[in-house]
Amino acid sequence: MTSVQYDVLGIGNAIVDVIAQTEEDFLVKHRMQKGTMALIDEARAAQIYAAMGPTIESSGGSAANTIVGVASFGARAAFVGKVKKDTLGDVFAHDIRAAGVAFETRPATDGPSTARCYVLITPDGERTMNTYLGAAQNLHPRDIDPNMIGRAAITYLEGYLWDPRDAKDAFVKAAKAAHDAGRKVALTLSDAFCVDRYRAEFLDLMRKGTVDIVFANEGELKSLYETADFHAAIGQLRNDARFAVVTRSEQGCVVVTAGSVTPVPAFPIDRLVDTTGAGDLFAAGFLVGLAHGSDHTTCGKFAALAAAEVIQHVGARPQQSLKALATANGLRA
Amino acid sequence: MTSVQYDVLGIGNAIVDVIAQTEEDFLVKHRMQKGTMALIDEARAAQIYAAMGPTIESSGGSAANTIVGVASFGARAAFVGKVKKDTLGDVFAHDIRAAGVAFETRPATDGPSTARCYVLITPDGERTMNTYLGAAQNLHPRDIDPNMIGRAAITYLEGYLWDPRDAKDAFVKAAKAAHDAGRKVALTLSDAFCVDRYRAEFLDLMRKGTVDIVFANEGELKSLYETADFHAAIGQLRNDARFAVVTRSEQGCVVVTAGSVTPVPAFPIDRLVDTTGAGDLFAAGFLVGLAHGSDHTTCGKFAALAAAEVIQHVGARPQQSLKALATANGLRA
Repeated sequence: MTSVQYDVLGIGNAIVDVIAQTEEDFLVKHRMQKGTMALIDEARAAQIYAAMGPTIESSGGSAANTIVGVASFGARAAFVGKVKKDTLGDVFAHDIRAAGVAFETRPATDGPSTARCYVLITPDGERTMNTYLGAAQNLHPRDIDPNMIGRAAITYLEGYLWDPRDAKDAFVKAAKAAHDAGRKVALTLSDAFCVDRYRAEFLDLMRKGTVDIVFANEGELKSLYETADFHAAIGQLRNDARFAVVTRSEQGCVVVTAGSVTPVPAFPIDRLVDTTGAGDLFAAGFLVGLAHGSDHTTCGKFAALAAAEVIQHVGARPQQSLKALATANGLRA
Repeated sequence: MTSVQYDVLGIGNAIVDVIAQTEEDFLVKHRMQKGTMALIDEARAAQIYAAMGPTIESSGGSAANTIVGVASFGARAAFVGKVKKDTLGDVFAHDIRAAGVAFETRPATDGPSTARCYVLITPDGERTMNTYLGAAQNLHPRDIDPNMIGRAAITYLEGYLWDPRDAKDAFVKAAKAAHDAGRKVALTLSDAFCVDRYRAEFLDLMRKGTVDIVFANEGELKSLYETADFHAAIGQLRNDARFAVVTRSEQGCVVVTAGSVTPVPAFPIDRLVDTTGAGDLFAAGFLVGLAHGSDHTTCGKFAALAAAEVIQHVGARPQQSLKALATANGLRA
């Protein structure tokens, strides 16, 4: 068995966020479903950008945010995802490497430009996302190096990978490589509408053991089991997933196994500014705990701390060292 | 006399900020003078960017930030500055127009890329800036439309315009157009090192009445008169400037005329995050007050409120409506 080089390796859509504050009526006018992610084409992207207020650009992408969070905790992290060799692609690559993440995926030299997510933040801090996948659609199984995957204790995959054509095959190849090397595979369900698009496939991944660890929020879980009953959904989840973590915003999370349901409270915050990245950073903290062999409650505390940091400022990546923050809050893996 | 179409028209370097949090030792290692702006060439820009941590991109430029602040107060605003027709140039143009500012300067189609400022924020919230002027160097007197200038109650110019080759001539042309139309001209001294580069010329602009209103911080004022004695500098300023406002960070500001020195306190804040844009937004509030004919103390309160908003988050432009903030704080022009 090869030695572990990375605590967590993430695979996901490589995206730059384009973020604006907005009023509720903007979402209504532009027919956006608040709090969710919609896939858009280039024409719609141009239309939304033209209508948006002043923006801030910040590297994003769900799994990429998570992996940057993992690195911010001082853990060893790698990311696989596709950008184009253009201005925003250079920004994405700079930012993830500057965060201490190994990122070696070859950028596309032609085809669509680097993916962008137009994020609208309403006064309540909720974010509504519109993603133009662009170059991220070109992530291909040949971008997956089984040797690299085999050197990661956990390979973390985002449900959003089911959207680009070839990325699904890259996902399956990576999961197989991880299991062949005796490693773990984690999946985030990403978004309630994403779950709605790929419900049967996600359930299949869980039931067949293609994924060992599942992250979901309450909305995604309810979408997965097509129920409004949270407890009923948890009951079904215990049959389908070996290990799952379900986030419930300010109510914290529950850690779910066949034999246990462990609640962990959220971390208190001063002011909710922008929920973008909350779930991503939650996963980062939890994965760091798992990689260090912490108990479920400690994993949940790391997770809650990271989520609390990211929702108190605009942007989906931590603005301070999560390692230092954990130390300051008496948390040790 | 033509009617007033803009309360404030700003002319300055059109720049996109590339912002990272950093530790003090980064500044030492890269030989940066904390709290100041250094001009850098493309090679140095590449070197600094490669060494910087993860960044956020946000439209900037001193006068541009001020003008966006003016618009955020609900006043009528216009900006003149040069970008290239490239990704960051498009971002700059989008952001300033989305803020409600008239921006019609023709972008360069060749030559250097859109200007970037690499901003390093230390844990104390202070910012240290490195500017690659790029396309901003191509601002030319032909970009100045005297008719447009004549329709602005106040034309606001940044001292930084003395750096690009042709912008100085554009500055002088604009000041003349404003005075020919019976309007006011305001100048910010921009930066202590900028003052050091152009001390004699800035004093000449003030003494000859090319500018009617001067904005400076304490460091710039001391640099202007090459003294460490604040009160002595104020004494000299009263002889040289018709009207001046000197900011003193948390000590607020003093409004200076030949016959009066009026102190106005700073606005209280919860947490200092990033001082980038503090002076720019201070000027915005003050100019809005002046454009509405408010008394000096009221102008100073608008200014202090806008500065307080921008230093409580990362980035040099307001993240909430300054008009709404003013109303919430009982301020009316």
